[in-house]
Amino acid sequence: MRRVSIYDTTLRDGTQAEDFNLSLADKIRVALKLDDLGIDYIEGGWPGSNPKDQGFFEEIRNYELKHAKITAFGATHHPGTRPEKDANLRALLDAKTRVITLFGKSWTIHVKDALKISLERNLELIRDSLAYLRPHVETLFYDAEHFFDGFRADPDYALATLEKAVEGGAECLILCDTNGGNLPSFIEEAMRAVQQRFPHVPLGIHAHNDSDVAVANSLKAVEMGAVQVQGTFNGVGERCGNANLCSIIPNLCLKMNVACLEPDRVKKLRSVSRFILELANMPPNRYQPYVGRSAFAHKGGVHIAAVERNPATYEHINPEQVGNRRRFLISEVSGKAAVRYKADEYGIPLSSTDPVALEVLKQIKELEYQGYQFEAAEASFELLLNRAMGRYKRYFELIGFRVVDQKMSEDEEPVSEATIRVRVGGQEEHTAALGHGPVNALDNALRKALEKFYPELKGVELSDYKVRVLPGKEGTASKVRVLIESFDGKEHWGTVGVSHDILEASWQALVDSINYKMYMSEQGKGKGRNGS
Amino acid sequence: MRRVSIYDTTLRDGTQAEDFNLSLADKIRVALKLDDLGIDYIEGGWPGSNPKDQGFFEEIRNYELKHAKITAFGATHHPGTRPEKDANLRALLDAKTRVITLFGKSWTIHVKDALKISLERNLELIRDSLAYLRPHVETLFYDAEHFFDGFRADPDYALATLEKAVEGGAECLILCDTNGGNLPSFIEEAMRAVQQRFPHVPLGIHAHNDSDVAVANSLKAVEMGAVQVQGTFNGVGERCGNANLCSIIPNLCLKMNVACLEPDRVKKLRSVSRFILELANMPPNRYQPYVGRSAFAHKGGVHIAAVERNPATYEHINPEQVGNRRRFLISEVSGKAAVRYKADEYGIPLSSTDPVALEVLKQIKELEYQGYQFEAAEASFELLLNRAMGRYKRYFELIGFRVVDQKMSEDEEPVSEATIRVRVGGQEEHTAALGHGPVNALDNALRKALEKFYPELKGVELSDYKVRVLPGKEGTASKVRVLIESFDGKEHWGTVGVSHDILEASWQALVDSINYKMYMSEQGKGKGRNGS
Repeated sequence: MRRVSIYDTTLRDGTQAEDFNLSLADKIRVALKLDDLGIDYIEGGWPGSNPKDQGFFEEIRNYELKHAKITAFGATHHPGTRPEKDANLRALLDAKTRVITLFGKSWTIHVKDALKISLERNLELIRDSLAYLRPHVETLFYDAEHFFDGFRADPDYALATLEKAVEGGAECLILCDTNGGNLPSFIEEAMRAVQQRFPHVPLGIHAHNDSDVAVANSLKAVEMGAVQVQGTFNGVGERCGNANLCSIIPNLCLKMNVACLEPDRVKKLRSVSRFILELANMPPNRYQPYVGRSAFAHKGGVHIAAVERNPATYEHINPEQVGNRRRFLISEVSGKAAVRYKADEYGIPLSSTDPVALEVLKQIKELEYQGYQFEAAEASFELLLNRAMGRYKRYFELIGFRVVDQKMSEDEEPVSEATIRVRVGGQEEHTAALGHGPVNALDNALRKALEKFYPELKGVELSDYKVRVLPGKEGTASKVRVLIESFDGKEHWGTVGVSHDILEASWQALVDSINYKMYMSEQGKGKGRNGS
Repeated sequence: MRRVSIYDTTLRDGTQAEDFNLSLADKIRVALKLDDLGIDYIEGGWPGSNPKDQGFFEEIRNYELKHAKITAFGATHHPGTRPEKDANLRALLDAKTRVITLFGKSWTIHVKDALKISLERNLELIRDSLAYLRPHVETLFYDAEHFFDGFRADPDYALATLEKAVEGGAECLILCDTNGGNLPSFIEEAMRAVQQRFPHVPLGIHAHNDSDVAVANSLKAVEMGAVQVQGTFNGVGERCGNANLCSIIPNLCLKMNVACLEPDRVKKLRSVSRFILELANMPPNRYQPYVGRSAFAHKGGVHIAAVERNPATYEHINPEQVGNRRRFLISEVSGKAAVRYKADEYGIPLSSTDPVALEVLKQIKELEYQGYQFEAAEASFELLLNRAMGRYKRYFELIGFRVVDQKMSEDEEPVSEATIRVRVGGQEEHTAALGHGPVNALDNALRKALEKFYPELKGVELSDYKVRVLPGKEGTASKVRVLIESFDGKEHWGTVGVSHDILEASWQALVDSINYKMYMSEQGKGKGRNGS
């Protein structure tokens, strides 16, 4: 079976995306996760360009990776100096990686308009930079920036730059569609010309998605013999993003019979995709191929009936192969079949006659109709299950709260204050707190009231708070769904609330968060429930 | 120049998407918009399947379309009856469209597991259904459902179904990748076989995006000679969606020299894309190729400098060709160049020495840093501009407000009440209102106070209210951005507010909304500012 290397550039090219930012600590966590998945190369950054990237290479050296090789990325040396004097090449070597990827210019307009040097001088930069790095590094790759646009504009020159890269000692020539403007048929044409000129040099592909064909361009290159595919998780990247590895990997493994991950790792794909989105606080795209929440969701009644008889009728793969799952959208179906599917979805051991399970399912259906959503709020779901099974314990009782938000003039920020009365085991507590906004005031007051009775709540922080206005035309009276993620230093758990009143919705999610913490403490539970 | 027909199925297959729903009135508005764009065929629905679709066909007959033909979609007749007795075929004819698209089964497992009839009987259904419709309709298309999967499983049978469709009188055979599981190389292989068998029959393509290659599959089919491409706007559709016409259209027109819209219409693409998303209350995907907000956004300093010299260096097309625009992400750059770009973005006539313009730009930069975002809030932006130019008029002064949200027991919804004091031209008004939640109470109180002085505010409704928690790790104290869209029966306008306090953020957006309405009334302005 043929094998192709996967080269991930989420940490470098991916972070060029608008609204996708990772801290140094996040970058380390992503690298370890990608290593665990079995990615071959992880491009950590451009050490010459910013201090965060330099910090990454220093830090990652403290970890022993299982499989992946970390690579450092950088440009050819400055035209005004020599390789051995060039700060950028120096930074690349200082990153102390086993692999370096150097990029150079293939397109004449870039040589003239961006570098502002002669075409001949650019050829020297490519060869000399690579030749200088060559003895100092185990593996050396060459990214031919704008190769396809360059080839269209001046095929001879574009091929000449590759010639110099080979002379300089590059082991693999990665052909880049940097602007994402090329279609698969042209990828084929250009790549054929490269293969005729360099029949024995390994090639790679680096595609961007500006024409919505980055995945197809990458697959085309593999079909033609490319041995390396560069891309990012979830397709993040500048403008419309890079080629999406979450699509390329399963297309290669499951459809084209090309190996790239160990077979048992492909089913981790969805969880790694989600992990990265969560770290970057990016909302997932529910329609994302393979790993999206809707990727195996069936809505039409005809489709559901057919999938029930034979899943292949409307599913191109078994969703479990990529760690995803089938969903039947309950609103469109009814009766026992729908209920049984919903039970499967939540892993409820349902003999179809069990009255408790049926009651729970009825509740879920009703709550989802109201706008609740349990995928990211498994703690709320588990509490609901417990309640239906009579295992619910009340840790406190609310007597009442009042939240006041007062603005005293046009130029002053309002002041938010919450008062609260709760009862715990016969004892009443009446207290008050201020906050940054009314939700925060209520949150502070509730914690203040309860920490007296349950000191373990002091260690709980809210690691995420999300508000979604539910579709409707009610303006400021619209329903909102609040999702809260809590963290106690060890476990993450998600809870949900829905109401026309944002304070009530937040209250529901806060109460579930606290109840779940107390429930975990009593059970001595070790398993997190972050819904990811 | 070669021409290909565009067949839009946003209103039929598109509405199978999770979370994408259009009312009957919305469907009419979308159809008119697509007609205006110059789409050839607009599939309005499946009249046999639900009353909303039937209503669409009745309603759309009242409009005279400029170019598009409305098509009705339906299945082959029920195996237990004859065509002339079949309710589904009857409903198709009752839709009274000039075009009908009939779909049939190409894949043996569907015939056996879904229809549960013999392979021979399925062939009869296809031929007889089409032959029955043929004399009653101007144009008749055949959608070969699951053609590619069917061809892989049993090529002879799949081709036999097409044979029957041709016998029945179909004018175009549309090959469907219904499950979205096929890659471009297989599309090519199967289509070649079809062309060998039916060298003179026009072919079309209908692709789904489950493998992230729906656009590439569609382009491949066009390369091979397909004369019709089916898809949806923004790629909405069941599971991962249909082939995205927002990508296919510019790829055809701008890259492949294949005509499909009138040249001057392509630049409407972005606004039609946004219009449909807004009607469906779907958040736009900022990374969407061609039409997304980030599609021509440049972040890296190197890229910005190069684009400044020559846009082709990092842009595959001129963004104006599809109605989009270039953006430089201000955070990453500095100095005069950045300021000038920001001015261009907002259309400010800036001589680089104008102190007012420079002051405005400084404010925008600061506000964007705080989390304000003006693309969907052009009314707020225009007010800001007016203030800087000294043209700002105060329509009222806030003396103070207080919002109280009180919950009296665990099972009761809280009660929200707002009190407010404002001054208008020396007169003070002190009033109060209840609401569904605290934001709504404040909204109600403010309107109540001001409508006394400005009766024109009575006609203003809030047509949309959105809350976004800005990235950060502050839990319930996170900053939120509120976007409000207002409508006065004629104009739409968007306003924005940002604060740690959701009431304060909503307040800012509400105040801007009211000020903008008053400003428009005074100017007698006719132009909407909905930022779309």
